[in-house]
Amino acid sequence: MSDYDVIVLGGGPGGYIAAERLGHAGKKVLLVEGQYLGGTCLNVGCIPTKTLLNAAKSYAHAQHGARIGLTVEGLSLDWAKLQAWKKKVVDTLVGGVAQSEKKAGVEVLEAYGRFEGPGRVSADGRTYTAEHVILATGSVPVMPPIPGVRDNPQVVDSTGLLDIPEQPKRLVVIGGGVIGIEFASLFATLGSQVSVIEMLPEIVPNMDTELAATMRRALKGIDFHLSCRVTKVDGGTVHFETADGSPGSVEADVVLMAVGRRAALEGWGAQESGLDIGRGGIVVDDRMRTNLPGVWAVGDVTGRSLLAHAAYRMGEVAVANILDPQAHRRGEVMRWHLVPWAVYSLPEAAGVGLTEQQARAAGRDVVTATVPGYMSGRFIAEEGTQAVGASKIVVDARTRQVLGIHLLAPYASEAIWGATAVLETELSIDDLRQVVIPHPTISELIREAAWAVKA
Amino acid sequence: MSDYDVIVLGGGPGGYIAAERLGHAGKKVLLVEGQYLGGTCLNVGCIPTKTLLNAAKSYAHAQHGARIGLTVEGLSLDWAKLQAWKKKVVDTLVGGVAQSEKKAGVEVLEAYGRFEGPGRVSADGRTYTAEHVILATGSVPVMPPIPGVRDNPQVVDSTGLLDIPEQPKRLVVIGGGVIGIEFASLFATLGSQVSVIEMLPEIVPNMDTELAATMRRALKGIDFHLSCRVTKVDGGTVHFETADGSPGSVEADVVLMAVGRRAALEGWGAQESGLDIGRGGIVVDDRMRTNLPGVWAVGDVTGRSLLAHAAYRMGEVAVANILDPQAHRRGEVMRWHLVPWAVYSLPEAAGVGLTEQQARAAGRDVVTATVPGYMSGRFIAEEGTQAVGASKIVVDARTRQVLGIHLLAPYASEAIWGATAVLETELSIDDLRQVVIPHPTISELIREAAWAVKA
Repeated sequence: MSDYDVIVLGGGPGGYIAAERLGHAGKKVLLVEGQYLGGTCLNVGCIPTKTLLNAAKSYAHAQHGARIGLTVEGLSLDWAKLQAWKKKVVDTLVGGVAQSEKKAGVEVLEAYGRFEGPGRVSADGRTYTAEHVILATGSVPVMPPIPGVRDNPQVVDSTGLLDIPEQPKRLVVIGGGVIGIEFASLFATLGSQVSVIEMLPEIVPNMDTELAATMRRALKGIDFHLSCRVTKVDGGTVHFETADGSPGSVEADVVLMAVGRRAALEGWGAQESGLDIGRGGIVVDDRMRTNLPGVWAVGDVTGRSLLAHAAYRMGEVAVANILDPQAHRRGEVMRWHLVPWAVYSLPEAAGVGLTEQQARAAGRDVVTATVPGYMSGRFIAEEGTQAVGASKIVVDARTRQVLGIHLLAPYASEAIWGATAVLETELSIDDLRQVVIPHPTISELIREAAWAVKA
Repeated sequence: MSDYDVIVLGGGPGGYIAAERLGHAGKKVLLVEGQYLGGTCLNVGCIPTKTLLNAAKSYAHAQHGARIGLTVEGLSLDWAKLQAWKKKVVDTLVGGVAQSEKKAGVEVLEAYGRFEGPGRVSADGRTYTAEHVILATGSVPVMPPIPGVRDNPQVVDSTGLLDIPEQPKRLVVIGGGVIGIEFASLFATLGSQVSVIEMLPEIVPNMDTELAATMRRALKGIDFHLSCRVTKVDGGTVHFETADGSPGSVEADVVLMAVGRRAALEGWGAQESGLDIGRGGIVVDDRMRTNLPGVWAVGDVTGRSLLAHAAYRMGEVAVANILDPQAHRRGEVMRWHLVPWAVYSLPEAAGVGLTEQQARAAGRDVVTATVPGYMSGRFIAEEGTQAVGASKIVVDARTRQVLGIHLLAPYASEAIWGATAVLETELSIDDLRQVVIPHPTISELIREAAWAVKA
C-alpha cells in the first residue's frame, strides 16, 4: 500500500489545480511545495504584475482624462502603497489556494521535495510513496552569461523588479518578450524613461508579426532597440551591438533581465531519475505522461507552454487521465495550439491559434483580414479617434476553418477566450460571422475582422 | 424593372448593416433615413451612454484609487467637456456609417420614408420601387400616461437626459430595466443622489433573479424602491405606492422615464399596409420575413429584441435570405435565445441563454452553480477583496448541455461573447471545462462556475 494515491511535486498553478481536482475526486493527495504555494504566477508572476499594471491603467486614465472632461490635480502614485496593496492581493490569493486545498482534503507539505523515481518522493528526511507522481516544479528566469550581469546590483530579474523599493527613473529592459513588454509598459506609463533591447527584429516573437509591429507603435513612451545584441552591462550602462555591427549603449538605474524562463530541472532529482528530458523540459505526451510509469509532468517544467492557464489545463488533463485511463477519448488531452495568450500591457494584446506566419510556414493556404481599432464604437469612445489597435483573423482558404484570432486593444485578455471557444469547436469563418457579439464592445473587432475576410 | 434591388427603410444598426452587406454583395440599394443615420443606438442610445459611463468609470477609479496608492487632488468631471467629447464620438461614428455605406455603393436618402406596400416606398414626394423592402424603423421610448408626466419639463426620456446641460444633483429614475440602471449607475458614480423606482420586485427583469439581486447590492449609492408603482409626478416630486399600498415620494431635480421602449409603428404606413403586427411589433419568422411578399423587418420594430447587436444580426439574416433563398439551411436564421445582453453599469453585467428561472419555467431539469467574484485573481487585484461580483451557469441535468451563462463583474460585456460561442456550438458542461481561459482574467469566473456545477 502506498502512502498516497498521488503526490504532487510543486504548488504552482499546474500542481495546485491537479491536487485540488484529485482531492475533490476522493483521492488521497500530498502536495509538496518548498517555496511558494501558488507558484511563480501567484507570488512573483502574473498576479503581482497585473496588480501593478492595473494601477498604471488607472493612473493613465486619470492623467489623460482631459479629453473626456476628467480633471485631476496633483496626480501621483505612491509606490510603497501600491506595493502594500500588491502584497495584500498576493497574500489573499495564497490564502485562497491554501483554503481550496484544505477544502479538497489535500495534505500540503511545506518542504522542498525530491523525486526518487516512480511512486517515490522524499522531503524533510523521509520518503513518501504513491501510485502516481505529478511533477510540477515550474520554471526559473534565464540569466544569460553576459559580462557584467552576475552580481551586478543594478541588474534584476522579474522577481527583483516586482519588489523594487522605489520606481526607477530610468529602466532598461533586456528582452522584448511578454514579460519584458509588460514591465516596460508599466514603468513607461508611470513616467519612467524606458528602453527595450531585443535581439530579434520584432517584439513579442510569438505574436503575429503584423500585430506586433502595430503594438510597438501603440506602446507609448518606450524606446525600442530591435535586432540588437547586448554585449556587456557596466553598472547601469547596457552596451549592445546593432544588426550592422555598430555599438550602442543605454544608461539606466535598473536593468531588467527578461530574456525568458526555462524549466526548473535542477536540485530535485530530475536528472538522476531516468526521466526523458528534452530541449525545453520534461518530455510529455498529450495526456501529460512522462516516459516513467505513473509519473506525470505538468506546467512550465514541460517547457511546452510557460503560461499559468496552460498549467491549469495540463493539471486537469493529467488528473482526468489518472482517474480514467480512457479519458483521452473524451477529449481530455492537451490541445497545445488552443492555449490563448495575453499581454497585459497598455494596450493589451491577446491571441489564440496560428499567426499568419505560423500558418504559412506550416504550408497552409490562408486568407487573413486585419481591421483597425476604430472599427469599434467602444474603442473610439474610450480610446479616442487616434488610438492604435487592431484585430486579425487567419482562415484556411480551402476548408474555411478559422485558424487564428488576434486582438490588440483594451480588454483583449477578457475577449480572447471566445476565440478559444471558436477554435476548439473548429468553426468556419461562415459560422463565426453568425456569432452575435454585444454592441458596443471591443470584442466586436473580431466580428469586423471575420466579415472583412475575403473568403 | 424596379428602381432598386432593395430599399431599406430606417438607418439604424439593423438597416445600415443590411444596406452595407447588400451593397457589398453587388445589389443596388437605397437606404432611407429621416432623422438619425446610425439610429437610436449610435445617436441617442448605446454609444453616447457608454461614452458617459466610461468617463464615470475613470472618475470612480481616480476617486477610489487610495487603496492602490493612486492619489489625486481636485478631482472633477467637467460635464460640458464630457458632452463635447460625447458629441465628437457620435459625429465620428455617424461619419463612419456614412462612409461605409458609400464604400458599399449604397445610396442614402435623408428623408422620412413611407412604406406603400410590397416593393414600394415613398419619400420626398416620390415613390421608389424595389424587389425587396426591409423595414427597420426602430423603436421609441414609452411614455406612460402617469399624471404629471406630460409637458413636465423636469421629466425626460433617455434622449433628453443624454443631452442635459448639467449633471442633476438629484435624479429619480422610473424603471429599473437596463436603460434605467445604466443612467442610475452613471449619475450615482458621479455623485448625484439617485433613486430608482421599479414596479417589479427586482431590477433588470430579464436577468437571472439571483444575479439581479446581487447586482443591486453591487450598485453603489443608489436608493432602490422595488415593487413600487408610480402614481403621479408633481414637478420634481415622484409619488408612488408600495406593494402594501402605502404611499411614498422622492424629490428630484430631474426625473428619467425609463419604463421601456416600443416598436416605432406610427407615421410610416405600417398600419395601412396589411402588415401583420403583433403585440410587440411587426411579426417576422426566423428568416426575418413578414407576412407580405418581399417585405422583411429587422431590429427593434420587430419587438423581438431591442438590442443593437440583435438588429445587426437580424439585418444580416434578412440579407442572407434575400441573396439566397436556401440560406436558412446554412444556419442563416435568427437564434433569438443566443443573443447576448450587457448592462454597462459599474459593475457591468452580461449574459446569454436561459436564466435559471426561464429554464425551470420551460420545464427543464437544470443544475446551476454560482461563484463569487473573488474566485478571480484579477477581480481581487482590481476591485479589492470586498467587491461584489458573480458568475452563474445553468446546465441541463440530463443532456449536460450548457443553457445559460451569466456574469456580474467588470469587463462582463467583453467576456460574454465567448459564452455565446459556447451556446451556439451547444457545448456540454464537460466540453466547456476543457476550454482554456487566460489567467488572470475575470472571464475565468465562467470557468470557475463551470467546474463548480455538480453535474
